[in-house]
Amino acid sequence: MFESAELGHRIEKSRYEDQVPALRSALLEAQFEMLRAARFPLIILIGGMDGAGKGETVNLLSEWMDPRHILTHAFGEPSDEERERPPMWRFWRALPPKGKIGILFGSWYSDPLAARAAGESKTEGLDQELEEIVRLEKMLTDEGAVLVKFWFHLSKASQKQRLESLEADPETRWRVSDTDWRHYKSYEKFHDIAQRTLRLTSAVNAPWVVVEGADFRYRNITVGTALVGAIKRGLEQCAVPEVVAPAARVPVDNLLLIHSLDLSQKIGKKAYVNQLAKYQGKLNRLSRDPRFAKISVIAAFEGFDAAGKGGAIRRVSEALDARAYQIIPVGVPTDEERAQPYLWRFWRHIPRAGRVTIFDRSWYGRVLVERVEKLCPTGDWARAYTEINDFEAQLVRNNTVLVKFWLSISQDEQLKRFREREATGFKNFKITPDDWRNREKWNDYEFAVCDMVDRTSTEIAPWTLVEAEDKYFGRIKILRSLVNRIEEALDHVG
Amino acid sequence: MFESAELGHRIEKSRYEDQVPALRSALLEAQFEMLRAARFPLIILIGGMDGAGKGETVNLLSEWMDPRHILTHAFGEPSDEERERPPMWRFWRALPPKGKIGILFGSWYSDPLAARAAGESKTEGLDQELEEIVRLEKMLTDEGAVLVKFWFHLSKASQKQRLESLEADPETRWRVSDTDWRHYKSYEKFHDIAQRTLRLTSAVNAPWVVVEGADFRYRNITVGTALVGAIKRGLEQCAVPEVVAPAARVPVDNLLLIHSLDLSQKIGKKAYVNQLAKYQGKLNRLSRDPRFAKISVIAAFEGFDAAGKGGAIRRVSEALDARAYQIIPVGVPTDEERAQPYLWRFWRHIPRAGRVTIFDRSWYGRVLVERVEKLCPTGDWARAYTEINDFEAQLVRNNTVLVKFWLSISQDEQLKRFREREATGFKNFKITPDDWRNREKWNDYEFAVCDMVDRTSTEIAPWTLVEAEDKYFGRIKILRSLVNRIEEALDHVG
Repeated sequence: MFESAELGHRIEKSRYEDQVPALRSALLEAQFEMLRAARFPLIILIGGMDGAGKGETVNLLSEWMDPRHILTHAFGEPSDEERERPPMWRFWRALPPKGKIGILFGSWYSDPLAARAAGESKTEGLDQELEEIVRLEKMLTDEGAVLVKFWFHLSKASQKQRLESLEADPETRWRVSDTDWRHYKSYEKFHDIAQRTLRLTSAVNAPWVVVEGADFRYRNITVGTALVGAIKRGLEQCAVPEVVAPAARVPVDNLLLIHSLDLSQKIGKKAYVNQLAKYQGKLNRLSRDPRFAKISVIAAFEGFDAAGKGGAIRRVSEALDARAYQIIPVGVPTDEERAQPYLWRFWRHIPRAGRVTIFDRSWYGRVLVERVEKLCPTGDWARAYTEINDFEAQLVRNNTVLVKFWLSISQDEQLKRFREREATGFKNFKITPDDWRNREKWNDYEFAVCDMVDRTSTEIAPWTLVEAEDKYFGRIKILRSLVNRIEEALDHVG
Repeated sequence: MFESAELGHRIEKSRYEDQVPALRSALLEAQFEMLRAARFPLIILIGGMDGAGKGETVNLLSEWMDPRHILTHAFGEPSDEERERPPMWRFWRALPPKGKIGILFGSWYSDPLAARAAGESKTEGLDQELEEIVRLEKMLTDEGAVLVKFWFHLSKASQKQRLESLEADPETRWRVSDTDWRHYKSYEKFHDIAQRTLRLTSAVNAPWVVVEGADFRYRNITVGTALVGAIKRGLEQCAVPEVVAPAARVPVDNLLLIHSLDLSQKIGKKAYVNQLAKYQGKLNRLSRDPRFAKISVIAAFEGFDAAGKGGAIRRVSEALDARAYQIIPVGVPTDEERAQPYLWRFWRHIPRAGRVTIFDRSWYGRVLVERVEKLCPTGDWARAYTEINDFEAQLVRNNTVLVKFWLSISQDEQLKRFREREATGFKNFKITPDDWRNREKWNDYEFAVCDMVDRTSTEIAPWTLVEAEDKYFGRIKILRSLVNRIEEALDHVG
């Protein structure tokens, strides 16, 4: 992996000065072309050995390109905001939108590598983390991103030389820390870990560019040239190839999971009022339990139009302190959201520890409305099940209680509610031509829902199917499930 | 994941009898169409709960389709042949060629699942194995295979009922073993492990089809329908989309790794004879060391035409007992090999423990001659680096000493040797028009070689670059490297 990066690559000063102007023009031109096209972001990861010119490269890129369209993020110690969310959250915050360039200095590779080097994780643990990275990078490039991963390398001798020469100069002495020397001492170990990392995470969609770091002229020309190439390939790459649609998952006996729900289940007004008070009280007490500070809660509500999502959400939020929760209504994405991978708009609302986020519709839109209404190419929703499972696994590992409700009603009940909404002045706003149109595709939605549950109801994040024909029954089931799941989680962390 | 497979799916006898004839015709027709097209194999994996109808399904498929074009493999305890090779070897042996159907009953999922269920592995270990499976399945489908993974599921109650009813009937009692009941007792545990497995290994290219197993009619129709669909989609799927070629890896200072070799290194005749005897003796003694039975050795030889691969190989094989080694010359693939993923032809020659396989040219042809001569689409060689690293990781984990030699000579030396071959009668056969043609692409080969080393010289399987301008020098370096690597490995297992 590193043989070619220990040859002592260098470029003469005069040749460098000859080449730089053309390279800078090419880079700027490429940058503006991708900005105009606004079709994909360029994500640049900067990793490698201490003293191999990582920081200098980051500075160089801002100098050589138009810095207004470059977002540079250096990741050091995570903030408390970041620590209370899944480790990937800080990187999602830093993703550049389509057309722009994001430089991640110290990327998702840093912590897994550092933990392994410090002996805090074993090879199996490292492999597990690398595997998540492979899946993340696949998702990013499937969503159109161009990814360039630079690994700046130094041979052991050059690293020593470089650290010594930095130390010798009073102007640059500050660059060398004790940590740098400690790392130098475990050079071989880190070298092996780095090789393993590069081996397991090299892929056609996410290649590593290994750069010998000793000579800054060689380094700069190499980096600049690689970036011009990457942007050009991004611009050339035609649209995502259309995939043959995956197999329909209609059971051969037509017995659909959501048909198996007993929608006749009811609860009387009096019992409802009692149980509502009981579960809201429980929920409130749980949310004030000291152990609640160690978890967070995400409740995602999906359901047929007019199934009562809004009413159910209100019954949940009523029980919570207004400072503790946030309701995120999910509709048409904003321009800013459209310029990002589709999960980005949900990552931005992931709660901190001790907080609750309620999604009124969710990331499942990808495999429901976007699938049924053909709002995205087949390939995009077809791979979304896996991407969603990966996303949810990250939440759950971070002590998030993830509760997913599907509110089911019959087609008749929906019609009744639609008519009521039309007839009642203050409910008018709740019914739109979209609702009537969706209704015509009832069967398609049913299949999509069952498919969704079959593929995303997992041991870590099961779906709760809610019989919502009777609103009281549905709301109580929702509150009870939520309370139970939180209780379990608190027992677990406590 | 399993909710829909616990609904009590069933199909009435009369409806079943109505549907079966048409389904069987459709299946047969699809089977013959894929046989005629001979463009892709269909690989069917059979997994799931005990008593859920796995065996019956395998039998059914042979009955419903033309069994002459179906290869069924049931994997129980590995044979000693199999145990001495990497765990995946037995599955590679069982892969169907293009046009044919392979049924793997008890597949690459069985052992990882069983080990986790028995507590022999942890979650991290399971994840690591699943990850390898994901990469394997990606490779298979990238190579064109259609993969259908059936998971036969039973709810806990149905499993109990099914085991009891099998036991009640003297005709079927033999089907139920103590193991089945032991598994039943740890139903929940296995259920969770299965969910995790399905979640992490579901992908667009390799979907799971979860089938409720209780009712044989429902099961049969579901399986048959899924297979017709899969074959049809395979036939529809157009050729692999052409990808934009990856970045060229020519260093900006034109300093190529293979140019850094000091080809002037020589060794005199007398020293050569001495050292040859010394290292051949060592090699022979090592191969008779009792610890050698615990390892195997693969030596892969690549190099420029006329670099002396054959001569070097002879010097190695001379030192070994003829029963202990095999030399595999790699040329144009056979028809049988062409009908398989390209790594298949190498997997078939993986040595048992205690044996040596010498490859005279190797799997690296994919990223050398096939790349340079454009014998395969860009996408195929571009992803091969990762596939090769994954392949080699499996070998190394299985205690294989993998030594990869690149024999380098200068362009002048090659010309000299070509001329010699033309001039010397008994060497005539060694020079062909191909050799002269390859020579014209010397630079392209150089880049491809450096790219290959940069991407596949890993911490587990480094390349040994051999200065072969002087034949004696090259041979001794090869023997010495081989001896050193084997010595290291023996110390490690010893």
